[in-house]
Amino acid sequence: MTTSHAAPRLELVALPGVPEVGAGTDLAALVVDGLAAAGLDLRDGDALVLAQKIVSKAEGRRVALDSVQPSPRALEVAAAVRKDARLVELILSESRRIVRQRPDVLIVEHRLGFVMANAGVDQSNVAGPAGSEVALLLPQDPDASAARLREALAQRLGVRVAVIVNDSFGRPWRRGSVGVAIGCAGLPALRDMRGLPDRQGRRLRVTEVALADELAAAASLLMGQAAEGLPIVRVRGAVLEGAEVGAAALVRAATQDLFR
Amino acid sequence: MTTSHAAPRLELVALPGVPEVGAGTDLAALVVDGLAAAGLDLRDGDALVLAQKIVSKAEGRRVALDSVQPSPRALEVAAAVRKDARLVELILSESRRIVRQRPDVLIVEHRLGFVMANAGVDQSNVAGPAGSEVALLLPQDPDASAARLREALAQRLGVRVAVIVNDSFGRPWRRGSVGVAIGCAGLPALRDMRGLPDRQGRRLRVTEVALADELAAAASLLMGQAAEGLPIVRVRGAVLEGAEVGAAALVRAATQDLFR
Repeated sequence: MTTSHAAPRLELVALPGVPEVGAGTDLAALVVDGLAAAGLDLRDGDALVLAQKIVSKAEGRRVALDSVQPSPRALEVAAAVRKDARLVELILSESRRIVRQRPDVLIVEHRLGFVMANAGVDQSNVAGPAGSEVALLLPQDPDASAARLREALAQRLGVRVAVIVNDSFGRPWRRGSVGVAIGCAGLPALRDMRGLPDRQGRRLRVTEVALADELAAAASLLMGQAAEGLPIVRVRGAVLEGAEVGAAALVRAATQDLFR
Repeated sequence: MTTSHAAPRLELVALPGVPEVGAGTDLAALVVDGLAAAGLDLRDGDALVLAQKIVSKAEGRRVALDSVQPSPRALEVAAAVRKDARLVELILSESRRIVRQRPDVLIVEHRLGFVMANAGVDQSNVAGPAGSEVALLLPQDPDASAARLREALAQRLGVRVAVIVNDSFGRPWRRGSVGVAIGCAGLPALRDMRGLPDRQGRRLRVTEVALADELAAAASLLMGQAAEGLPIVRVRGAVLEGAEVGAAALVRAATQDLFR
């Protein structure tokens, strides 16, 4: 009489007690130690989602604002958007172009292609030397950051896991931020659904699912649950098969974008 | 010597074997039966994510295309976007205005405020009488749909759960679709993070997290894992506290939107 089917299951666990990260911190060691402290294992097919902040900090992407000399253009934009001109200088140096600017709003096309507020340059949760102000830039190449961590974990633990670096982005049209992938390795950032027939044999119209973004958003649910932040999440049970595609592929080409 | 901290955990389970839904299907009974068949329980504080399609079908939102008489405007738009004029008539009847139109692309402001492709009118996975073509519209009021299911489950099972109705939306700037909430009840669709200090006592700049959208995206990871679809997902472990706010609040007012 047991007709119970196998219920597909997805489990996310945030590593507790992850210490502050500084330039040069070994992220693979951080993951290995964090898993051990929580009594958690890591298996082939798991995914690890890391908050952008710890990846950027480990890669030494902190910049002391005192060291930044704003250009005339940064001064002009800073006045228009009412932000610190040194911060605006950093934002512009990380960007290809400004997409929209308004008081308190500066949306740019990041050099990696992402359209986002402030080029991801962040002033919160970044500790500088006493009294100094520090900003944090995105990793130089987040897909490469993810790939390095994936390789380091394969070396140390003998497991092949997917790695995603996530950040919180605002969106047009919808209020609130959501977690998105800015870098990933070991999974298809986009899953191609083209040609998969539906129940009536009609081909599905949604052709690509942003798998890495959905994983990033799911992990973000846990990351935000502690004031001090939970920057590493292990995901188990997600279907990650398919040719590896990095998060760079998530960027819609400007020529194919109706909203830029 | 045990220093292991409690690891915050999020668990998502898709109900297997959910049968086809038709007009009048009792969604609460569908959930109760699906949980029982899978040997799963439901507890206070759980969230249930339901695919828009089954909610729309249960609410009789299927329309036979043969019954639709395209207006002159629908005929004109249909020619420009290369879609079935009857489908375009339905899309326009569900919309406040067209936001962008191009061959194969019709992005509108849905009557509920969502900016989305085709007003969510869907031709896939919708069975009509033999030979006839059928389209499926979004629920009339997805927040109300979620609230009704939440109340029905409270009545039947004595548990208070959050309910989210999700759909897959494309995005500007980023390729691929992601799950988003079009309706919800029993949770704050937006979580207000304003004023929460970070580790350095600086106030966080990300002020609102789209909690319902992140839950919708997480559930979407499981829903897409089977060709026949897994339209009901139970989420356990998410922090859902806060004043109840429906998914209507996720709509950014057109006057505050820089990309419309």
